[in-house]
Order: sequence, then C-alpha cells, then structure tokens
Amino acid sequence: MGKVRRFSISIDRELLKKFDKYIREKEYTTRSKAVEDLMRSALVEKEWFEGKEVAGSIVLVYNHTKRELVAKLTDIGHHFHEVILSTQHIHLDEDNCLEIIAVKGTPAKIEELRNRLRATKGVKHCSLAMTTTGREV
Amino acid sequence: MGKVRRFSISIDRELLKKFDKYIREKEYTTRSKAVEDLMRSALVEKEWFEGKEVAGSIVLVYNHTKRELVAKLTDIGHHFHEVILSTQHIHLDEDNCLEIIAVKGTPAKIEELRNRLRATKGVKHCSLAMTTTGREV
Amino acid sequence: MGKVRRFSISIDRELLKKFDKYIREKEYTTRSKAVEDLMRSALVEKEWFEGKEVAGSIVLVYNHTKRELVAKLTDIGHHFHEVILSTQHIHLDEDNCLEIIAVKGTPAKIEELRNRLRATKGVKHCSLAMTTTGREV
Amino acid sequence: MGKVRRFSISIDRELLKKFDKYIREKEYTTRSKAVEDLMRSALVEKEWFEGKEVAGSIVLVYNHTKRELVAKLTDIGHHFHEVILSTQHIHLDEDNCLEIIAVKGTPAKIEELRNRLRATKGVKHCSLAMTTTGREV
Repeated sequence: MGKVRRFSISIDRELLKKFDKYIREKEYTTRSKAVEDLMRSALVEKEWFEGKEVAGSIVLVYNHTKRELVAKLTDIGHHFHEVILSTQHIHLDEDNCLEIIAVKGTPAKIEELRNRLRATKGVKHCSLAMTTTGREV
Repeated sequence: MGKVRRFSISIDRELLKKFDKYIREKEYTTRSKAVEDLMRSALVEKEWFEGKEVAGSIVLVYNHTKRELVAKLTDIGHHFHEVILSTQHIHLDEDNCLEIIAVKGTPAKIEELRNRLRATKGVKHCSLAMTTTGREV
Repeated sequence: MGKVRRFSISIDRELLKKFDKYIREKEYTTRSKAVEDLMRSALVEKEWFEGKEVAGSIVLVYNHTKRELVAKLTDIGHHFHEVILSTQHIHLDEDNCLEIIAVKGTPAKIEELRNRLRATKGVKHCSLAMTTTGREV
Repeated sequence: MGKVRRFSISIDRELLKKFDKYIREKEYTTRSKAVEDLMRSALVEKEWFEGKEVAGSIVLVYNHTKRELVAKLTDIGHHFHEVILSTQHIHLDEDNCLEIIAVKGTPAKIEELRNRLRATKGVKHCSLAMTTTGREV
C-alpha cells in the first residue's frame, strides 16, 4: 500500500448506477475501494493460476475420537512443514473438530497437502481459501 | 449501452501497474472496458444469486446411440419449453453429441431443468454458463 | 457408454441417508447414476486443468445496435475458426443479443478466444460452460 | 462418523478405470473414501446454498502499518463476535499480515462479516473457505 494514482474512466451510465447500488450493499464507502478490490481479486486469481507463491488457508472438519487420525494429520503436517505457517484448532462439538491451517507456497504444493489431508480416513471435508502473500498486489 | 459517465478513481500505484499488465494480457485496449467488465461480472453474479430473470446456456454431452435417451431429452425439453429459447446440436464423434440449450428464466427453473437433464441415464456431463438478459447491466 | 462394472463401497450410514435425500432432490433415480455424475464432474475438471482437448460453450451478451461490433465479432470468429464448432444467435429484446458459441480445443485456446470476445467494446458479458468431448469420460 | 453401510453400485467400466487413476493421483487408498468425499462436497455445497448453520474461515491480507486499520478490524470483530470462533494472525513480511478468522453461523451472517472486512480501507484481499459444522454430514 503506497502512493495512489488518480485517473479517469468512462463507464456506461446505467451500469454505474447499478454498480453504485451494489457497492452500498457490500458496505463500501468509496468507488475507488470497490474497484480496487475487483482488480485485486482478478490478480490474485491470476497468481494462483500461474503458480506463483501464494498464501491461503486449508480448512478441515474431522472427528477427533478417531485417535489414529490425529496422529496421522500431525505426521502429514510435519511432512509439509515448509508450506504450513501455523494451525488453529476449534472444538465444534463433542465429536467434530475444525482445523484451520495457514499456508504459504506454490499452488501445486498447497494442493498436494490438501489432497493428502482430504484423503485421510476420518476427515469429513477439506476446503481451501485462496489469497495472496500481498507482495504483488 | 447508452451514454457513458466519466469520473475519477484513486488506485494504489503498484496495484494499477499490475492491473495494466493484466488488461494487456486479457486483450483489453482501455482501462474503462476492463473495469466495466469487472463491474458487470459482479452484477451478473448478484442477479443469479437474487433469483432475478437471467439467461445462460446448458451444455450436455451424451451418447446418441442410446435411442430412448434422445426421446427422453426431447420430452424434458418440451416440459421446460418456457425457459428454453433454442437448441444447438453438434456431432462430436461417432458416439458423442454436444447439445447446447439457450435458456432464459429464473435461476431456480434453469437449475431444475439442468438437474432433470443431468439425472437422465446416458447423459455424461451437464454444465451451465450463467449470463444476463442484458436488461439490467 | 459401454459395459458397466458392479462393485461394493462402504459409506458412513448417516452420510448415505443424507445423500439419498440429495439425489431425490436432484431428480436421480439410482445411486449409481448420481455417483457416476460426481465422478465425471471430477474428471472433467481435471481435463480442463491439465490442458487436454475439451469442449464447451462461450456465451456472449451484447448490444447489436453497435454495427461495428457485429463485424468485429465475426472477424474474431473467423480467426478462431479451428476451435469454433457452430454459433447460435438469439434476440433477447430490441437491443440485446445472446450468442452461444460451441467450442472444442485446448483450454488455453478457448480462454484466448473468450478474452478476445470479452474485451470487445459493446460486449456486456461473456461466460464459459466447460464440458468434455466425451471421449475420455 | 458412525457405522458404515456396504452396498453395490454399477459404474461404466471405462469411467471407473479413469476414476481409479484419479483417486490414486489424489492420494486416496480406497474407492469408498473417494466417493464419500464427493458425496460430502455435494452436501456441504447444499448446506451453504440453503442457509443452514455452517462453518468456515475468512482469510484477510492487509498492511498492518496502517494503525487505524487494525483498530477498525478489531471493532468489526467485536460486532460479529457471535459468528467468530477464533482468530489466527501471521506476519507475512515487514508490511503484510495474514489474518484467518474461524467462523460458524448462517451463510448470510458470514457473508455480511466478509463484506464488512473487505470494504475496510487497507484490506488487500479477503476470501472465504466454506466447510461444514460436521453435524449433518
């Protein structure tokens, strides 16, 4: 986040009216921030597509009562220690755990970790939030 | 597409540099068109989400050698004639057909048609391209 | 669609109950077809990811009153004639056209065509339905 | 994760061959686990679509040198304390922070929180990983 540049764009009048309504609904206070966010989203998608270093979180839901499962997940974690930044653990209820793993690395490596976790018996769901390291956007 | 409005926005300088590179890669010639497209994509997503009247195409791949299948698909088509605008048929090879159905209606109705088609024995894949009727964006 | 193979799988009982409800809602009549479709969807996604030859449809919405636009789109179409199988045109209303282009080729080439179309002034929206040539699934 | 049920399905032979290759690549050891995961993914998508209570993580990247930003994000966090389970903070580099917020609640409420965070000046990117509370799948 450094200096900003001011410039003009020409947008279809009807479209702009709709967009202004949209940004109010999305809680934006300025058009600039809303347009910046659309730009960044497009660029972050590109970073992932092109295999650059990215960041994100892998979210797991599993049943902790399966003892060997926890040990197995820990093993996988150590094997991928280079992409794992930290881990957060939440007890959802008596049985279910939510584990959130912060990751940084290439999309391929992150995908490999995700596959490994998801394939582990006892893991119910495993999803991925993709974001950026922030250096390039 | 009516009159345009010209206005200024302030964008982080580094971000803008990256975005300019992005729009060249995506074959855009002006920033205005690139920003307009990001705006429209956000709005079209919202139209689908909110259940407004939308347009799109349903794409099917199936094996035409299954005779009853073609009859069944035709039946389904007639049942949903209110959302179907037209159909395009392509012979992919000896066995496989690509059928593209242009649709207009509520997302719920289009989804229902898609489910019905996809569930039909012999249909190998069924996907959906979502777009707009153009009236609102 | 050739011969089928019958085999057993073991699924968590509660999950299976939920899945049976899901497949009824999605209009499936057998578990086998529902599972087949999930398998195929995963494989088609992989085909696109790996750059194999795929099929699909590109859906455009534009305002036909812009004369040069139609000429431009035709030019682009000819330039990409190798990936374009056929085109379907629908008059959505006085102003808006829906054009659906059936395509077959590598994902990269299809993406290039889509970018070129989307970047054209007057095109309001351009989306893509990805499917398979059917040969591999 | 309770008792399992064993049952048979009939799958196209060619498709099954491809799927077996797919599950090896995705590190699965059994077909049952791979099919279970496809089933669960479909159900979790449905939970989000239908507005049931779900879980997930919101991932933010922002520049911490903007002091007011951190205060603002904390304010938003407190306002949404009912959906926020815990927060994890990572220093990506001198300037960039990765913040991962574990959430549980309705999709609408989670979406509202995400909009509020994303619209905050200084936040570069904000994405969402959707998963389940595990109770229903």
